[in-house]
Amino acid sequence: MTISDGPLVFVDDLDRPVLSDEDHHHLARVRRIRDGQPLVLGDGRGRWRPARMAGSSPEPTADSSAVERPTPELTVAFALVKGHKPELVVQKLTELGMDRIVAFEAARSVVRWSADKATTNRDRWQRVAREAAMQSRRLWVPTVEPISSFVEVASRPGACRAQVGGGRLELGQLVMVGPEGGWDSAELDVDIPDVSLGDGVLRAETAAIAVGTLLSALRFGLIEAGSG
Amino acid sequence: MTISDGPLVFVDDLDRPVLSDEDHHHLARVRRIRDGQPLVLGDGRGRWRPARMAGSSPEPTADSSAVERPTPELTVAFALVKGHKPELVVQKLTELGMDRIVAFEAARSVVRWSADKATTNRDRWQRVAREAAMQSRRLWVPTVEPISSFVEVASRPGACRAQVGGGRLELGQLVMVGPEGGWDSAELDVDIPDVSLGDGVLRAETAAIAVGTLLSALRFGLIEAGSG
Repeated sequence: MTISDGPLVFVDDLDRPVLSDEDHHHLARVRRIRDGQPLVLGDGRGRWRPARMAGSSPEPTADSSAVERPTPELTVAFALVKGHKPELVVQKLTELGMDRIVAFEAARSVVRWSADKATTNRDRWQRVAREAAMQSRRLWVPTVEPISSFVEVASRPGACRAQVGGGRLELGQLVMVGPEGGWDSAELDVDIPDVSLGDGVLRAETAAIAVGTLLSALRFGLIEAGSG
Repeated sequence: MTISDGPLVFVDDLDRPVLSDEDHHHLARVRRIRDGQPLVLGDGRGRWRPARMAGSSPEPTADSSAVERPTPELTVAFALVKGHKPELVVQKLTELGMDRIVAFEAARSVVRWSADKATTNRDRWQRVAREAAMQSRRLWVPTVEPISSFVEVASRPGACRAQVGGGRLELGQLVMVGPEGGWDSAELDVDIPDVSLGDGVLRAETAAIAVGTLLSALRFGLIEAGSG
């Protein structure tokens, strides 16, 4: 993916682009982009278009192009944890190029949310993903799925548990990262593979970021699954 | 490394162990460890000893053992960045098993510290590393080095720059992660290899964590450097 110069900003319509108030503020005030300077407009689904800054209505300077979604699709699922860590996880997984991010309730998840709260949080994480994609110049914004259950995620193709002593991570796996307190016995009884993240005990958010790093590096060809 | 059950806590003397006030508070109040329950005492340099909780003076229950430092030694160097991100980086790199952590001033580093401030921060990061090692049950606390310069780090054996379009990361490399604004031209002119972290633009702290993840997985044999 080689896109033209200038900050990437997502808009609803590449033909009649309008910046959101927040994006305009960020570009004009924080990054100090002046009218006339280059921007890259994106739709968050692979399509982009060169433009120049012009108040909150950027002017396109060339036709739009499209970039295919990278394959295979990369998904990370993480058990809900307390505090602001889900935002950190969503931000980092987006930077690392995940296509799909799933939060699920594990037996030892610290939080239990009402349907309203779950929807509010998911919407906020989707905004975090959108901002992180702009920051990391990714033309595809990952999908943050509705909050799910252990059983539902474990039943998907390729599902496996991150667990000390497990096997090697491979492309095509949907790795589930457990909560701080680990999996409970019912979760360990579910017949899906375990994959290892190494010799240490990682915090939940670190484990999720590590999975994203390894999947991204495998897909990019930087590394290969170990054979030893 | 298989150590006995119970939380790991570092003490100065494994023969006459005394918990710091902070560690005692954490174990007794936060983790609710009662007198008589198992602990693992460590010296932070590979030596450990089973014990049981007894107020702030744990009672050893067996002789001490030692675990060799893993090889090869893993080092990550990161450019100083503003805010609380250095703490996050040091915490995550410790969880991931780095042996040595180096912060350095790059041309575009946001911060310039006095000698006093630099020493204070380094001391704080060393405490962050100690706590993260206990949390992740690592018997070796990484060394947080005094704050250094780009030129000094770049002159060490194995030094390389994290940079889009670079080559593959390998064990034995000392990867330098640049600041948010990237390397300046003088830094890019220094004749050391570039290594790639993938196709995205990562925030500085994400890049440092990604390097730690990949080095740790290479050393553990989970992955191999790509050959394609």
